[in-house]
Amino acid sequence: MIDVESLAKKAKIASRNLALCVTDEKNWALKLIAESVQANRDAILTANEEDVAWAKKGGLSDALIDRLLLTPERLSANIKDLLRVIELPDPVGEVVEEGVLPNGLEFKKQRVPLGVLAVIYEARPNVTLDVTSLALKSGNAVVLRGGSETIRTNTAIAGAIREGLKESALPFEAVQMIAETDRGLVLKLLQLDDWIDMVIPRGGAALHAFCKQNSRIPVITGGIGICHLFVDDSANLKASIEVIRNAKVQRPSVCNALDTVLVHERIAGSFLTDLVERLKEDGVSFRADEKAYSILEGLGADVRVAGPDDFDTEWLSLVLGLRVVKDIDEAIEHIYLHSTGHSDGILSNNPQNIERFMHEVDSAVVYVNASTRFTDGAQLGLGAEVAVSTQRYHARGPMALRELTTYKWVVRGDYHIRK
Amino acid sequence: MIDVESLAKKAKIASRNLALCVTDEKNWALKLIAESVQANRDAILTANEEDVAWAKKGGLSDALIDRLLLTPERLSANIKDLLRVIELPDPVGEVVEEGVLPNGLEFKKQRVPLGVLAVIYEARPNVTLDVTSLALKSGNAVVLRGGSETIRTNTAIAGAIREGLKESALPFEAVQMIAETDRGLVLKLLQLDDWIDMVIPRGGAALHAFCKQNSRIPVITGGIGICHLFVDDSANLKASIEVIRNAKVQRPSVCNALDTVLVHERIAGSFLTDLVERLKEDGVSFRADEKAYSILEGLGADVRVAGPDDFDTEWLSLVLGLRVVKDIDEAIEHIYLHSTGHSDGILSNNPQNIERFMHEVDSAVVYVNASTRFTDGAQLGLGAEVAVSTQRYHARGPMALRELTTYKWVVRGDYHIRK
Repeated sequence: MIDVESLAKKAKIASRNLALCVTDEKNWALKLIAESVQANRDAILTANEEDVAWAKKGGLSDALIDRLLLTPERLSANIKDLLRVIELPDPVGEVVEEGVLPNGLEFKKQRVPLGVLAVIYEARPNVTLDVTSLALKSGNAVVLRGGSETIRTNTAIAGAIREGLKESALPFEAVQMIAETDRGLVLKLLQLDDWIDMVIPRGGAALHAFCKQNSRIPVITGGIGICHLFVDDSANLKASIEVIRNAKVQRPSVCNALDTVLVHERIAGSFLTDLVERLKEDGVSFRADEKAYSILEGLGADVRVAGPDDFDTEWLSLVLGLRVVKDIDEAIEHIYLHSTGHSDGILSNNPQNIERFMHEVDSAVVYVNASTRFTDGAQLGLGAEVAVSTQRYHARGPMALRELTTYKWVVRGDYHIRK
Repeated sequence: MIDVESLAKKAKIASRNLALCVTDEKNWALKLIAESVQANRDAILTANEEDVAWAKKGGLSDALIDRLLLTPERLSANIKDLLRVIELPDPVGEVVEEGVLPNGLEFKKQRVPLGVLAVIYEARPNVTLDVTSLALKSGNAVVLRGGSETIRTNTAIAGAIREGLKESALPFEAVQMIAETDRGLVLKLLQLDDWIDMVIPRGGAALHAFCKQNSRIPVITGGIGICHLFVDDSANLKASIEVIRNAKVQRPSVCNALDTVLVHERIAGSFLTDLVERLKEDGVSFRADEKAYSILEGLGADVRVAGPDDFDTEWLSLVLGLRVVKDIDEAIEHIYLHSTGHSDGILSNNPQNIERFMHEVDSAVVYVNASTRFTDGAQLGLGAEVAVSTQRYHARGPMALRELTTYKWVVRGDYHIRK
């Protein structure tokens, strides 16, 4: 069995030098990695074919097989994303705050890397390259633990990464891959708080819960979104339907996809009818509270009465919850009780209601007149994304380079003593 | 036995309304709390007398008894500190970052409270009021768990706090106190990740380790400082002696007190002699590496050869480690191996060495020509302090109001959909 602790320790030792590498060295290394992955393209694609063959033999669903499939186009896109990280500003050394204290001491708070990240992920093999590029650019070493379904692909990609790193000025041991599928290794990894500074799970709710429960290291939980849009009676209703459609239909399998629409009772009748007429063409089915159901019954759409857990379900598919609310208070209360704190929004042209919603709803991202689909590092201007945090410490919402740093205080005096 | 979960849940429910209270309401509540503590002054002091009597009966050391003693003067100072928090800026609502994305979406990242803090502390009864004032001002509810030695004092103070709160617009349940001494209650508290957002231990290394090991909630570890000053051969030696003296002698029992002096070999002979001559008058004793020992032998000071663990010991007393190093590299390496990442500094007039030290030493606070004693929220301009973090996520170094907040994204569009 792999000695996980010795891998993590190697990463920690490497992280010390990595933290001191300058931007050019890091960018150059990313370029070398891209070239190495490109050069090992055939071997990576062959490894992926084997993973896919095993997955088929194992009877995995088509949807899951699609998630682990690496086509030549997907690999090219993955490399392109890596090259884009080169263009992003290096957060290390950035001054967050500075000033002079009354006694003349000068201080600044300056970004430094976190140290070593452990990323535990499932299925999608693009994560290997995505996470490596963001970790290295932000000066962090990384211990990767991919899913067993893609072990061959991930091992091939990690091999190519390390080949590239060897040519670079960065410490070669800064990227570690746990290339065994034993689940006990994850448990072991989560105990290594001497060597690892942050754990980022990328996968379903079960993986997040497992990490949180078993880790001695801070875990960035997130990526679980029960997302809401409240349609106020003042909203532009036609435009609201398009926003809802975008949030639900564009990519239903992801965490920022919409789960529940709350509609002000004053407009519920015509609005819900129009909404359902529009979305049924996209193959959406509905779970409606009783008021909504009574409006929609007989429209010829797939509308069922919502069960007791339906408003607490992240659908990840073309299902949409519908509820009629009395007013904004009831909408905010519903979100308080059912949201996972990921992405929730209001569609409204009423300034008071917009203010109240922005102030009182406390989700990682609160929207006014926009689709929840914007909760994404690239969409919100971060240039990339390593995770979407729905917990409250360190970072919230999309996380990219800056969110993989901490800061140190640097204080300069003239032989100052404390009075 | 107290139902800790129900207390924590009450705090969580209160935290929702507390988060929406405006600055004036919070300041007014702090004023009412100050008045209530003032009005209950005699009861609090009497409770403290009982705690002290029990401590004496239990054979606690004089030093420990002094830490739990609340004199009328100390209580007045405690109330004054609380009143000072009223003057500090409210971090809630502060815009951390804002901008307009290329597609016209406007975004801002705005500070919001963390939610519920659990503070687990030992001995010092001033923590009850200190922590409560910082928690409330930053919009956080708090669950307090003081040490058994001060249970009567803490209960009396918490009672006064809640009396004050009752008169205010803040939710009365926002301050909870676990007024039983069973250690199992702490273990229980650390499991309540549904209701508590952050755990702040205030006490010794054992308490921090216990919390980190047993908590499902993020723990702010810190307050353990093995602190270093490196005296470069270019330093102003006379001034350096005063800085070292300040760092070691002013308050040796605290975490930012100096533990080890590293001296460049080129100046070691005369500098160490002068330093020891000066500090021996203050009652300092020394643990010296062999080179330093050979210089200091026979000076008539209490100098012993450092044992194998001495450079990994946080002295918290008038003991100082001394080591002669070849150059700045050896100094940085020593700090890398022995520092707890709290406060480390260089005394030097050589710009290159100063640059290297600032860049390469990665402690929460890195000093140039200043005493390590400045690592303190009030000293570094935060106006107060709830803890000094030596871990790497969320906040590093002194933590006060801002560090008790997180942020949310608020994104405004004009019925924007993602392309």
